[in-house]
Amino acid sequence: MNALRAIDLASNSIIVEAGMRLQQVQELASAHDRLFPLSLASEGSCTIGGNLATNAGGTAVLAYGMIRDLVLGIEVVLADGRIMSQLGTLKKDNTGYDLKHLFIGSEGTLGIITAASLKLFAKPRAIATAMIGLASPQKALDLLIFAQQKCGEAIKAFELIPRIGIDFVTSHMTVRDPLSNRHQWYVLLELTASAPTGMDELLTSMLEEALAREIIEDASLAHSLEQWQHFWHVREWMSEVQKHEGGSIKHDVSVPIHHVPAFINDVTRAIEDLIPGARPVPFGHLGDGNIHCNISQPIGADKQAFLARWDEVNRLVHGLVVHYKGSISAEHGIGTLKRDLLKEVKDPIALDVMRQIKNTLDPLHLLNPNKVLPLK
Amino acid sequence: MNALRAIDLASNSIIVEAGMRLQQVQELASAHDRLFPLSLASEGSCTIGGNLATNAGGTAVLAYGMIRDLVLGIEVVLADGRIMSQLGTLKKDNTGYDLKHLFIGSEGTLGIITAASLKLFAKPRAIATAMIGLASPQKALDLLIFAQQKCGEAIKAFELIPRIGIDFVTSHMTVRDPLSNRHQWYVLLELTASAPTGMDELLTSMLEEALAREIIEDASLAHSLEQWQHFWHVREWMSEVQKHEGGSIKHDVSVPIHHVPAFINDVTRAIEDLIPGARPVPFGHLGDGNIHCNISQPIGADKQAFLARWDEVNRLVHGLVVHYKGSISAEHGIGTLKRDLLKEVKDPIALDVMRQIKNTLDPLHLLNPNKVLPLK
Repeated sequence: MNALRAIDLASNSIIVEAGMRLQQVQELASAHDRLFPLSLASEGSCTIGGNLATNAGGTAVLAYGMIRDLVLGIEVVLADGRIMSQLGTLKKDNTGYDLKHLFIGSEGTLGIITAASLKLFAKPRAIATAMIGLASPQKALDLLIFAQQKCGEAIKAFELIPRIGIDFVTSHMTVRDPLSNRHQWYVLLELTASAPTGMDELLTSMLEEALAREIIEDASLAHSLEQWQHFWHVREWMSEVQKHEGGSIKHDVSVPIHHVPAFINDVTRAIEDLIPGARPVPFGHLGDGNIHCNISQPIGADKQAFLARWDEVNRLVHGLVVHYKGSISAEHGIGTLKRDLLKEVKDPIALDVMRQIKNTLDPLHLLNPNKVLPLK
Repeated sequence: MNALRAIDLASNSIIVEAGMRLQQVQELASAHDRLFPLSLASEGSCTIGGNLATNAGGTAVLAYGMIRDLVLGIEVVLADGRIMSQLGTLKKDNTGYDLKHLFIGSEGTLGIITAASLKLFAKPRAIATAMIGLASPQKALDLLIFAQQKCGEAIKAFELIPRIGIDFVTSHMTVRDPLSNRHQWYVLLELTASAPTGMDELLTSMLEEALAREIIEDASLAHSLEQWQHFWHVREWMSEVQKHEGGSIKHDVSVPIHHVPAFINDVTRAIEDLIPGARPVPFGHLGDGNIHCNISQPIGADKQAFLARWDEVNRLVHGLVVHYKGSISAEHGIGTLKRDLLKEVKDPIALDVMRQIKNTLDPLHLLNPNKVLPLK
């Protein structure tokens, strides 16, 4: 069940079966001079069916959305064994309720998605990438708003990195500091566009103005593939290098973008109070409000003793997430791990409607039982 | 119930109540140097609540999607009177089922949307617009595919116009032929981008290459506001001018984009067989597969006698839509007018799931009764 069923370059759509690996979808799109923008660390092994069941996100959400936004139609096996096939490639179809979004992201609890009709995009023809040094998450937020005004929809990635993350990367990988001086915070910013030229000029002029306005402290554009890889490696190794620093307690959270600076500040202070010496490494997709709020153990502390405080640290961070009207699961879903947390953070009416729908579409609870919905 | 509740420039979001007029949302966005891209002929009078209930489309769908794609969250009154409030501005939130898409486009049959959190976009900084003459819908499709390769996501509008539509406009409005020679078909193509320059050059070089490849016959770029308005008036008056040509039988259909040329060809032939002299005026959003397939009466025929054949003509056109796996309601929804047609064109399993959900969320059928779902 991993076949390509159809590809249509006029409609910019591809129909694939759920067992196809994400990377294969990307390659099929590329072979037809198109882009399938969903991109994840696990793209070589994860399947489209899994991506759909969990509404996967990744690094291109700022520009292209979650996988939910990339779907034209699905084929799904219902709990009673019937197959509902809605694999059209139409962009406009207002004939009745939109059922696909109910199944996408339901983690297999409402039906099993067996195929999908996905959107393809034009390949970008121009790219410009910069590593930027700045003083604080607030300055990074100021830069995001300024960059959106000047560069608009061309912004493809806007990734926040703290100094401690750069220290980890330069300590544990053979990579140099990305800018000549040290800065407290960094942003990796990438623009892409359909027009083949003009992106470097646009990015340069925006950054010069941001420097003049004292939003940023320094910036360097990638002028070669090697420099581009260097900047992206710094960002992509951020999770990996934490393994060399002992235990790490992880969170997959998002908050409204304008609250990100206050949220990072509050988490940092609260963690210092709770576990003196513990080192927050908040990094990630500032443009989506999705900060990977990982906490590395204090230097020299006992790893197991630190990791034993996982739930306690989660509770603290999730409390701040709820305070800022954020989400305790930005990308990774609920499953069983966060199932019982859900009733603490979710509107009880929404939870009740979810239950009503589950009971209607899967009255015997045959599909992925006891996942997502909290037991009463 | 037409208040602005919040606007957030970092998250690029606006929260408004359902009674606010669409144009007011556009104006609020513009006052903050942002774009709310939904655009309809009725934007001065229609409300956001109505737009959400019907999943409104319009002229910017190719670039920005239907209103469904512009929604971050909704507040909705359920059939039992409870209010489900999901007005967050988060772009990433995987905590449970996505319920908002069930209510959007349900035409008020599952709940009453009272407020919404909507996405805002950067205002485009550059625009380039061309009127293009070409030989056939197939050439227009060739141009669409070619333009997508060369100009990618910069394509904002791709509108097809038949020669007869130009004749109607030049006969009934004070406007000249848009190109120096006559062509059988026309495309109005518009590019926009975040970078302030380069769009004219991109459009010109793409069109020169399309001319050399004999995809197009001629093209003219709008070099002034007056020219830009001229091109768009030709397109926008397309419905209006049909009123001066007697009775017109209308359709709101879409088909997969690569089938548009065959669909137009088949409709034209079938109409000629059914009502000799009747004049098809297929025009509209080729980039979305959404062709307004209107049929003007034969010259000199009796208007009432022609309009009396409305259902018969609908049946013929809808039969071809179903043949090409299209939609009999691309933008306008189902209501009561198309309610009984739905069971002829919709997958019976999808229809059954729709019924199950209706009976679960509104067991007494209090909400907009007898709309959308066919009586058994």
